[in-house]
Amino acid sequence: MSKKRIAVIGGDGIGPEVTKQGVKVLEKLGQITDLNFEFENFNIGADHYLETGELVTDEVKADLTNFDAIYLGAVGDPRVKPGVLEHGILLDLRFSLDQYINLRPIKLLDSKFTPLKDKEPKDIDMMIVRENTEGLYAGVGGFFKKGTKDEVATQEMINTYKGVERVIRYAYEYAQKRGKENKLTLCDKSNVLTYSHDLWQRVFKEVGNNYSDVEKHHMLVDAMTMKMVRNPEVFDVVVTCNMFGDIITDLGAEIQGGMGMAVSGNINPEGVSMFEPVHGSAPDIAGQNKANPLAALLAAAMMVEILGNPEEAQMIQKAINLSLAENQTTVDMGGKLTTDGVGDYICSVLG
Amino acid sequence: MSKKRIAVIGGDGIGPEVTKQGVKVLEKLGQITDLNFEFENFNIGADHYLETGELVTDEVKADLTNFDAIYLGAVGDPRVKPGVLEHGILLDLRFSLDQYINLRPIKLLDSKFTPLKDKEPKDIDMMIVRENTEGLYAGVGGFFKKGTKDEVATQEMINTYKGVERVIRYAYEYAQKRGKENKLTLCDKSNVLTYSHDLWQRVFKEVGNNYSDVEKHHMLVDAMTMKMVRNPEVFDVVVTCNMFGDIITDLGAEIQGGMGMAVSGNINPEGVSMFEPVHGSAPDIAGQNKANPLAALLAAAMMVEILGNPEEAQMIQKAINLSLAENQTTVDMGGKLTTDGVGDYICSVLG
Ligand SMILES: CC(C)[C@H](C(=O)O)[C@@H](O)C(=O)O
Ligand SMILES: CC(C)[C@H](C(=O)O)[C@@H](O)C(=O)O
Repeated sequence: MSKKRIAVIGGDGIGPEVTKQGVKVLEKLGQITDLNFEFENFNIGADHYLETGELVTDEVKADLTNFDAIYLGAVGDPRVKPGVLEHGILLDLRFSLDQYINLRPIKLLDSKFTPLKDKEPKDIDMMIVRENTEGLYAGVGGFFKKGTKDEVATQEMINTYKGVERVIRYAYEYAQKRGKENKLTLCDKSNVLTYSHDLWQRVFKEVGNNYSDVEKHHMLVDAMTMKMVRNPEVFDVVVTCNMFGDIITDLGAEIQGGMGMAVSGNINPEGVSMFEPVHGSAPDIAGQNKANPLAALLAAAMMVEILGNPEEAQMIQKAINLSLAENQTTVDMGGKLTTDGVGDYICSVLG
Repeated sequence: MSKKRIAVIGGDGIGPEVTKQGVKVLEKLGQITDLNFEFENFNIGADHYLETGELVTDEVKADLTNFDAIYLGAVGDPRVKPGVLEHGILLDLRFSLDQYINLRPIKLLDSKFTPLKDKEPKDIDMMIVRENTEGLYAGVGGFFKKGTKDEVATQEMINTYKGVERVIRYAYEYAQKRGKENKLTLCDKSNVLTYSHDLWQRVFKEVGNNYSDVEKHHMLVDAMTMKMVRNPEVFDVVVTCNMFGDIITDLGAEIQGGMGMAVSGNINPEGVSMFEPVHGSAPDIAGQNKANPLAALLAAAMMVEILGNPEEAQMIQKAINLSLAENQTTVDMGGKLTTDGVGDYICSVLG
């Protein structure tokens, strides 16, 4: 029986409420399977920042590397300037823990959730593999003659061979294993970004030589967004840079039902990974026991899967499918349950 | 009676066939209104490039500035390496003629054209104002240790105060005049692009001080794509940078019916502007008299409007609406007409 140590960062707003459901469900899973979880809460977020001025200290980062995974709720608080918590917590953790893969499944569970006409669950079922530590997110740039009419502002999109190679290789592996069509699409803007995305093109070809069984496709990012709303069924696994990944994963989240169902894994395959619902902290409904915990539960399922337990992950996934089919959901999803109520329902379905 | 001199660049593939319809319709318009057009054809495109090695020479560029507008079909040919014609013609013209505004109307004409559920023409009706000469399109960047495992590739997003100010001012003016809700949304990624999009944020506020009657909104690009497919009705005028504009205008084109209906104006308010259908050269159907000319006709209407004749532009627009309502369209749009047939129909409706 293997024990998994999970660091829980509830964070801000509805974050702690929804991760609480995840912890409850994982504890239940521990009772009925061979899995065993141990949780430790980390006090990271707006309150802690406003009290102490600290975001994530080096000590905390070092501590986090001792865990098997991080389970994150949400960060963001109206009392803190926009960007501060996102940079100081989310992006800082991704970068310092070198979580170079952002895994974003796009999977429609019921036709009623998509804003697209005539699309069924089988049509919207892809995995987006986003580079998570480079590109326009490098934070490199500057101002020249700032504040004058001659101002120039620059922002650098930086990619390294190492960074591009590892995410593309991961995506090929994923396409090989996923069991849909063994198809990988590179999404870029190589016709305009003739430096940074030329590197992506070359590496995609080079690494692809080792994956002759994977069907290779290319799509420019502008065409990609069109295809996603007209013919999402053509996609299996998609690999893309950090910035375009940010955009197309959110578009993907929407076509599969919106933020209530969207989950994000920040993966370091050789280190500690972090799993989170994509939604924000929703301060307006925090503490009212009405936040929808399904995305947080899907994040918990993804964590279980990436930790090497796909069958147990499926158990959570199936329980979630049932909650949707039976309308055992919160009000925003068409049901009548509280946040706690949904968590309890999932636990009861599990056994 | 004012004479407008139009430079026609038919270009590649279906380009010449569809601009031919536009010329025919404008000639007809000249017969029944006070407007008067004179056309000159420019031999620019793949054939010319393959014969002579020339794309757009300095002489041609100088000549083009003597026209009132440029009417472009499409560029792109399978015999030419991808990127060459796009850069050497499209982007080169935009940059050298300083067409700093890319105007992309997103307007649904009939519910049946959108892939979105439950959206009517009134719900999808916005104007995207894209910066067209800066940002990631600057073409600045490079390689370090190219071809090695230590390679670094950079691509610079460069914005100038001048470039950002003029497009934002244009967008405010547009929002004021457009007659929908006097609403302008800035779409950026200022929470991550803390240099280049910080400039956008500052200029948006500063210029906005002169437009107290325009309602100001801000949306991050990732959230923007979600909103566009879930609630496109919230948008009136949107202003954004070159790269994000490329992406969201194509997404916009799709939600209003796809490439068959999408049009793009490359505007230099103080110089010569260029109007084009958004679709490509579609070499597979070139020369078969079956290409859909409606986007090219919409581009002609936009040209007439920007040249200062909104009423005459409306005449073309109404004729197009009628052709859709009466299924007087090409096969891809559900009709039975040829390319020529659609042009003739529009002319006959005009009078
Ligand atoms: C909060 C923000 C910095 C973040 C990003 O841009 O990566 C978010 O949009 C995401 O996709 O996880
Ligand atoms: C062809 C390409 C270079 C161009 C662009 O990226 O601007 C096109 O996508 C457009 O939007 O007009």
